[in-house]
This record gives sequence, C-alpha cells and structure tokens, in this order.
Amino acid sequence: MTKRIWSVTNTRQIFKDRWISVRADDCVTPTGATIAPYYLVESNDFVHMLAFDASDRAILVRQYRHGFAGLTLELPGGIMDERETDVTGAAARELREETGYTGGRLKHLITLSPDPGRYTNRVHLVLAEGVIAGIAAPEPTEDIETVLVPRHELVSLACSGAVTNAGHVGLILLALTRAADA
Amino acid sequence: MTKRIWSVTNTRQIFKDRWISVRADDCVTPTGATIAPYYLVESNDFVHMLAFDASDRAILVRQYRHGFAGLTLELPGGIMDERETDVTGAAARELREETGYTGGRLKHLITLSPDPGRYTNRVHLVLAEGVIAGIAAPEPTEDIETVLVPRHELVSLACSGAVTNAGHVGLILLALTRAADA
Repeated sequence: MTKRIWSVTNTRQIFKDRWISVRADDCVTPTGATIAPYYLVESNDFVHMLAFDASDRAILVRQYRHGFAGLTLELPGGIMDERETDVTGAAARELREETGYTGGRLKHLITLSPDPGRYTNRVHLVLAEGVIAGIAAPEPTEDIETVLVPRHELVSLACSGAVTNAGHVGLILLALTRAADA
Repeated sequence: MTKRIWSVTNTRQIFKDRWISVRADDCVTPTGATIAPYYLVESNDFVHMLAFDASDRAILVRQYRHGFAGLTLELPGGIMDERETDVTGAAARELREETGYTGGRLKHLITLSPDPGRYTNRVHLVLAEGVIAGIAAPEPTEDIETVLVPRHELVSLACSGAVTNAGHVGLILLALTRAADA
C-alpha cells in the first residue's frame, strides 16, 4: 500500500489566519509524475452533532454560509478549538453555543474526512439522545436559527436537497441507518 | 431572508492555479459585525457518479488522496472542465477516464454543496444503471483501482467508515434511499 503514497519534496505555507491555512506541497507520485505545487487546506477538525430531544425531534440549524452564498440547513457544530481533544465535549459545546440545548446521552459515532483531496482535517460525528432546551450563546458574527425536525421526517429531509452540505447528508443518513440496524 | 446575508466591502484573489483558487472577502454581517478577511476556496464544480453494471455491482475507486494522506474508497468523479456544462456528460467522462466503464442509463439525481462554509462550488451526483466495462484512461498523476461492490453491500460499506469522504457517504446513501422509495 505504501508504494501508492506521494512523496513531498518541498512544503510551504501560503497563508494562515485564525480559522484556515493553505499549504503548498511539491509532490512526486510513485510513478515519477510531479505535482508541484499541490494545494492543501488546513484547519482544526470539524465536529458535528445529531441531537434529539425528549420528543424525538432533531435539533438542526439554519444560517448564512458565505461559500454557498445563502442560507443552509445543517447539523450544529463547527471547528474544534485549538486545545480541544475530546470530540463529544466539543460537540456538546457547539450544540450549546449555537442552539442552547445541553445534556443527553452522547456517543461518538464515526470520524470521516470532509474532503480527502484538499482538506487535511477530519470531521467527527456525535449522536445525542435526550438533549434539553436552554439559552444559546452564539458568536457576535453568528445568526443561527434552530429548526426542530421530527425523527421520522429526517431521512426525506436529508434526501430532498434542503440539507445542502453533502457531508451533513452523509452524517445524518449514516446515523439513522446505524440506529435502525442497532 | 435577504437581510441575513453578509455584504462584501472588498474582495481579492490570494492565489490561483489550474485546480483551485483562494479568495479573501471583507464581510459585514447584518448585525454590523465585521469579518475581514473571510477566505473562500474556489474551483469548478465537482461531479460524481454512482454507477451500477449489469450484475448490479457499484463501480467505486480506490486511490491516494493527499489531503487525507492515505488511500480512500470513493465514487468516481472529479472537477468539471472549464467548458463543461452538461453534468451527466461530465460524470460519464470521469467514469470512463478513471475506470473504463461507459454507457448505461444516466440520471442527474441532485446538486449539493461540498462545504457551504468555505467552498463556493457545487457537487453534482449522477446515477448510472447498466454501465459496461472498458479500458480506463487515467491522468499520468492518477493511480486508480476499480472496486466492484454488490448493491446490497453498499449501505453497510458506506456506514462502516471505509468510504472516508463524508460527502460521498451522503451521495451514496441518498441515491439508495431515493431508489428504495421510487
């Protein structure tokens, strides 16, 4: 397997801010082809939570996303803080900040990649059952609307195009499929 | 809805190559908070195909991905060419180049976002039924292994973590859910 991995002959950082950095690697493939530079997007890991309240409603969020240039319906979550190592704790923090919901039984379901071609980070999915409503504490730049979706409507919603982030569609359907098999 | 959209007071391109460019927008939220700069990753749209052969096997690919820094199992596909506007044609081209498979009955199933926070482009999913094996024509930098997966094993595979791209998990499960409902 190792023989299929690219070697890196030079690496440099193009720029870096608080949330994102871009790295340029000069690469050589196992067959000797050169890819120089190959750009990589670096950030801390993403963490997202599929949380259900005691009435079996999923807690989703609707907000403006500047890449998409419009409002999106998605799982609560975001970028883990620099010093955060606990995935379930980070997911609970994001859920609380964005929606006010807390508590519940938490389970780290899976870790995947948001884009294995360009993104060096990972995306973690945490499932929560029985979360309790409270007061949200969003960042000053955030304007987040909480949207409650009955569990039995979640599959058709995720397949309708209303959840625009393909990765979030994957995390939602994966969690529901695993729950159905459990 | 419009009042929730950020306004852009300045925009500049940080760098650009053949596949990717990074843009820095100075933004102001509707509540007056400034986000400057906010970095966006631009590229042509992604297109991916979930293709089945006459024996009801899905055509997946395994290849090295430098962001993930390892081998990934995923849907065939990639970045649309500059002048490509036909989504099904682009998906058929990618399938043919990467795996050699051609033909079949093609259907554009959905268009989503690969990452509405950072990516300005879209990801298109095309379904193909009845594709026929042929000779692949990968790029010199590509080393792509075709992996055939029986349709009835695809859900458990997509939920196992073996398909590392969360968006591809979403596209696979969405296509299968819609097919089951059809």
